[in-house]
Amino acid sequence: MRSHGTLAHRLIAGHLVEGRMEPGEEIGLRIDQTLTQDATGTLVMQELEALGLDRVRTEVSVQYVDHNLLQADERNAEDHAFLRSACRRFGIWYSKPGNGVSHPTHMQRFGVPGRTLAGSDSHTCAAGSLGMLAVGTGGLEVALAMAGRPLYVTMPEIWGIRLTGRLPEWVSAKDVVLELLRRHGVKGAVNRILEYHGPGLRQLTAMDRHVIANMGAELGATASVFPADAAVRDFLRAEEREDAFRELAADPDAAYDWTEEIDLGSLEPLIARPTSPGNVVPVREVAGEPVGQAVIGSSANPGLRDFAVAAAIVAGRQTDPGVSFDVNPTSREILADLTKTGATFDLIAAGARIHQAGCLGCIGMGQAPAPGRNSLRTFPRNFPGRSGTEQDVVWLCSPETAAVAALTGEITDPRDWAAREAVPYPRLRLPEQASVNRAMLEPPLPPEQTARITLERGPNISGLPDLDPLPDTLEGPVLLKCGDNVSTDEISPAGAKALPFRSNIPKLAEFTFTRIDPDYPHRAADLSTDGGPGRHFVVGGENYGQGSSREHAAITPRHLGLRAVVAKSYARIHWQNLTNFGVLPLEFADPADYDRVDAGDRLWLENLHTALAPGAEPRLRLHNTTKDEAYEVRHRLSDGRRHTVLSGGTIAALAQG
Amino acid sequence: MRSHGTLAHRLIAGHLVEGRMEPGEEIGLRIDQTLTQDATGTLVMQELEALGLDRVRTEVSVQYVDHNLLQADERNAEDHAFLRSACRRFGIWYSKPGNGVSHPTHMQRFGVPGRTLAGSDSHTCAAGSLGMLAVGTGGLEVALAMAGRPLYVTMPEIWGIRLTGRLPEWVSAKDVVLELLRRHGVKGAVNRILEYHGPGLRQLTAMDRHVIANMGAELGATASVFPADAAVRDFLRAEEREDAFRELAADPDAAYDWTEEIDLGSLEPLIARPTSPGNVVPVREVAGEPVGQAVIGSSANPGLRDFAVAAAIVAGRQTDPGVSFDVNPTSREILADLTKTGATFDLIAAGARIHQAGCLGCIGMGQAPAPGRNSLRTFPRNFPGRSGTEQDVVWLCSPETAAVAALTGEITDPRDWAAREAVPYPRLRLPEQASVNRAMLEPPLPPEQTARITLERGPNISGLPDLDPLPDTLEGPVLLKCGDNVSTDEISPAGAKALPFRSNIPKLAEFTFTRIDPDYPHRAADLSTDGGPGRHFVVGGENYGQGSSREHAAITPRHLGLRAVVAKSYARIHWQNLTNFGVLPLEFADPADYDRVDAGDRLWLENLHTALAPGAEPRLRLHNTTKDEAYEVRHRLSDGRRHTVLSGGTIAALAQG
Repeated sequence: MRSHGTLAHRLIAGHLVEGRMEPGEEIGLRIDQTLTQDATGTLVMQELEALGLDRVRTEVSVQYVDHNLLQADERNAEDHAFLRSACRRFGIWYSKPGNGVSHPTHMQRFGVPGRTLAGSDSHTCAAGSLGMLAVGTGGLEVALAMAGRPLYVTMPEIWGIRLTGRLPEWVSAKDVVLELLRRHGVKGAVNRILEYHGPGLRQLTAMDRHVIANMGAELGATASVFPADAAVRDFLRAEEREDAFRELAADPDAAYDWTEEIDLGSLEPLIARPTSPGNVVPVREVAGEPVGQAVIGSSANPGLRDFAVAAAIVAGRQTDPGVSFDVNPTSREILADLTKTGATFDLIAAGARIHQAGCLGCIGMGQAPAPGRNSLRTFPRNFPGRSGTEQDVVWLCSPETAAVAALTGEITDPRDWAAREAVPYPRLRLPEQASVNRAMLEPPLPPEQTARITLERGPNISGLPDLDPLPDTLEGPVLLKCGDNVSTDEISPAGAKALPFRSNIPKLAEFTFTRIDPDYPHRAADLSTDGGPGRHFVVGGENYGQGSSREHAAITPRHLGLRAVVAKSYARIHWQNLTNFGVLPLEFADPADYDRVDAGDRLWLENLHTALAPGAEPRLRLHNTTKDEAYEVRHRLSDGRRHTVLSGGTIAALAQG
Repeated sequence: MRSHGTLAHRLIAGHLVEGRMEPGEEIGLRIDQTLTQDATGTLVMQELEALGLDRVRTEVSVQYVDHNLLQADERNAEDHAFLRSACRRFGIWYSKPGNGVSHPTHMQRFGVPGRTLAGSDSHTCAAGSLGMLAVGTGGLEVALAMAGRPLYVTMPEIWGIRLTGRLPEWVSAKDVVLELLRRHGVKGAVNRILEYHGPGLRQLTAMDRHVIANMGAELGATASVFPADAAVRDFLRAEEREDAFRELAADPDAAYDWTEEIDLGSLEPLIARPTSPGNVVPVREVAGEPVGQAVIGSSANPGLRDFAVAAAIVAGRQTDPGVSFDVNPTSREILADLTKTGATFDLIAAGARIHQAGCLGCIGMGQAPAPGRNSLRTFPRNFPGRSGTEQDVVWLCSPETAAVAALTGEITDPRDWAAREAVPYPRLRLPEQASVNRAMLEPPLPPEQTARITLERGPNISGLPDLDPLPDTLEGPVLLKCGDNVSTDEISPAGAKALPFRSNIPKLAEFTFTRIDPDYPHRAADLSTDGGPGRHFVVGGENYGQGSSREHAAITPRHLGLRAVVAKSYARIHWQNLTNFGVLPLEFADPADYDRVDAGDRLWLENLHTALAPGAEPRLRLHNTTKDEAYEVRHRLSDGRRHTVLSGGTIAALAQG
């Protein structure tokens, strides 16, 4: 079936500046808004500088500081000062530490139905909850969008997800997206937009939809799209921005490339087991496991309702002495509302640790659990080690399931606890008006003032590395061979050790691939010569580079000499990031050839400048000198991206014109 | 004048089990209560284990977790699990992460007028606010007190501080103790107890007195003592513990060894400049300095009133965009009360970052400021680098001064701001009843259950090092020569890099003295032989080892081979810690000899076993082989402590009997 009349199509068509809306074709989209966060933003600002930008050309660009708030040493506050100065220089809104996580804060203060949003954070898709077309992508793509250039994406297929019925008590939005992950796994929506429709939507508030839209990233989706309907109007009214509302929906006769139905009434409390968001099972199947930590928060459960329901569950009770019950407010505004309603008090009295507003443990900045002890989190991801603990045991669930576990000290189906304790499902009365605070965001300076601003670059902020063009013949060893679903957390870790170096590429490079193979940086260093880093290959399996949008996962191995990856398939954002920094992303034409290549084999590609010329067939011969054999490999590079990779990356390509 | 009739004398006499109450004599005190915190407590628990203790013999012993709450990796949660298991094993109360800073929490839940308290934290003296005799000391001293042994201290002189008059508006308790530091500096109260009396007390609540008592540590005092009067009764009533109250005061004709008077009405807002609590000047003299961070919290300003006054100042206003305004609640109870009164909401709305309850930036665990940018803190200490930032610029002030700076973005005398903005001094209405929560502390297990408990020792918890006896002839180089007022923060740093290793002596030793000389651990390693670490000396100036009570500052250099320190004078707690771990603390008989010794000189002491025999004269000849000269040095070791040092430390001495 060829889809038509979908809301996603309308949003794309309204912003199409290049290409045809045929699935698989590269299209260019006009971008209205951008968001960056601190972990990716320091590079974005250096890229704007390298691009020679004077002032952003978007309607709205916002820099959030939410990822690294620990300030364990001076580097952190240095990054914050650098980001603020760059905002003042380039005409960007600055959201300072403590204002909150980018996604809910952006939705509250800037989200507008019908607009496009590009964000250097993989969960940018959360803004689809307001009827936006919101795409998470690499930092350089966002920098280009800020400079007024189109955002290039592969035209996705549209997957219509029809919601019917009503959620039972003790089941909430998180369980809806966990059900999708249970059905389809972490690659289920690659090169698709998830478009939600149907009568079940009526029960879901805009923030409930944020929960579902956000974790589209975990399914590999390009975007998540919800209609802009009465629920969106209510949300914007509560945020004192009703004038931003416009109604948006698919045509009544819309058809989708793929269809799916979820009867909300059939759902039960779900949980993702360690160590993938795709390992979803019913909570009751794992009930009784002892719990050492329960955490409420993150962009995957950011709403006032998510905290309020947890507060209602623990109110008047005490958390188990063996559980650390951590509450991470997702924005200053939500913490203010929680406080106003009394929920903050209930949480504190029950034993919660209330933390500052931010991503915190979700990005491994603090809250690392004890090794081998179960940690239940309302977060979107539980990739191994992402929590900061090597031997972590992290589960993903709803606020209801996490709060009940904090009380019982073990994984508990909240329905069973409610029946045993005769507790009714909380009926929340939330304020109709949010604690809006416009002063919390620093607006862009007027154009006549920005030119005077200089960037405050502390000693830890390195500048972008120089990247040389792709040679005509590429020869080198396979320095690493990895399996399926390798995440960018494994390629370039976050967490308290590495994240403070996000502005310092040479230093951060020392962490590259160390979660998989601690020796990779040393082997790369051993290869290097006076002429620079030693060129090498990495071999990957399916869905290579899933997860976070961090372009560091392309830059740091490139800095160490990686010039081509050969994989079975790629996650969308990481594929773009590789091309942006001049790394050639190849795919095995026959996936069985993956098994024929071993780590240490020497590979060889020749005549690359001819093979990657505009219009040339997208296939190459990859020679394996060690095995004395060759494989057919393919690429999905448009003519423009071929030029980019040959030039050594986007910035070099733009400099050449 | 010989003092008599003081409250301090009565408290000492009521607990005296050894020695005579003559200033300078060593006395042994019966200890009713102990407190330990996590940064010192993991060693205390290992010491209890080494002592073979079955159950603590005190009335109350409490283990708080307040110093390291960042959980940047798995070590932190491992420490928490270890501490909880040790509490269950030895019959100790456990206060879990999030309950709050030990000093205010102990005061709220356990403080009893007339009792003695020994704590492995230098600010333990804060409990003097309730009429307790509360002494901060090394962990091993506390472990011995937990085992029912006396606490040995040098009988101090009693310094009567008479308070008269009334504090002006915009001046509060912090300014009182800053005034004492302005007058007397960081050595002003060494070997003294500060006993407060006089009509000015009537204006000061128990928590105000905590502020003043707490920073007795900064003056070098052995303890701070306030009477138990109506203000203490009011405090205990609000905490639902009025039955713990008994009235205590000095005799009407009490006489003091030293006297001082402070007319509260004459005070003005004061601030300690970087990098010592003794650098106090009026705020107005430094007004106009730009501010990058303002922090409210810590045991030096822990009360509900301290946060509430800051909230009242910022209510309805916005903090400066360039200032990070951090609020560190000091206990779960205080955060609950702040929330109940609406102050939390006011703080959030004005732009504050509300953090979990704990020490946080005060011990350098997060909140590190940007290098070179002024940070105003209501904390007790601003030693260089303690914030986590090498080039830090930290100032100490009242909540009023910090809150006003958060609004103006520069150091501002709050009276000037109030006059300019026509703001009246806040009249606070605080709840008469505190949000008492008895469930927040885990009580000791009954004796019949503790024997079954095993300590949960994670891989990062090293165990105590074996310490060999002092040799009869000690020969070695001066590996480091330092100046006056070297703090234990400089000997064994805290902060986010080092503090996670507090349970791992070999690893922590790599940080020894690195704030003063990054090369010290390497030089020590170069000296080591197959027989173990290379014996060496350190030369210090006046007040060597001031600040934190951490015994790590004795153990880690001892682990690297330090066997004797020769200094002009010592801070009390560090002197005890050196002896407890078998390091000989010597003093130059002629301080001018300090100038004759250089780093690198080889020193030599002979016949130590004779020279340190019971009853021998407390002086030795210290030979300088390099200079071919000798100096007279002295020690202040009682016969018992001579045996301890000769044995290689307290645990070895006890094992020998």
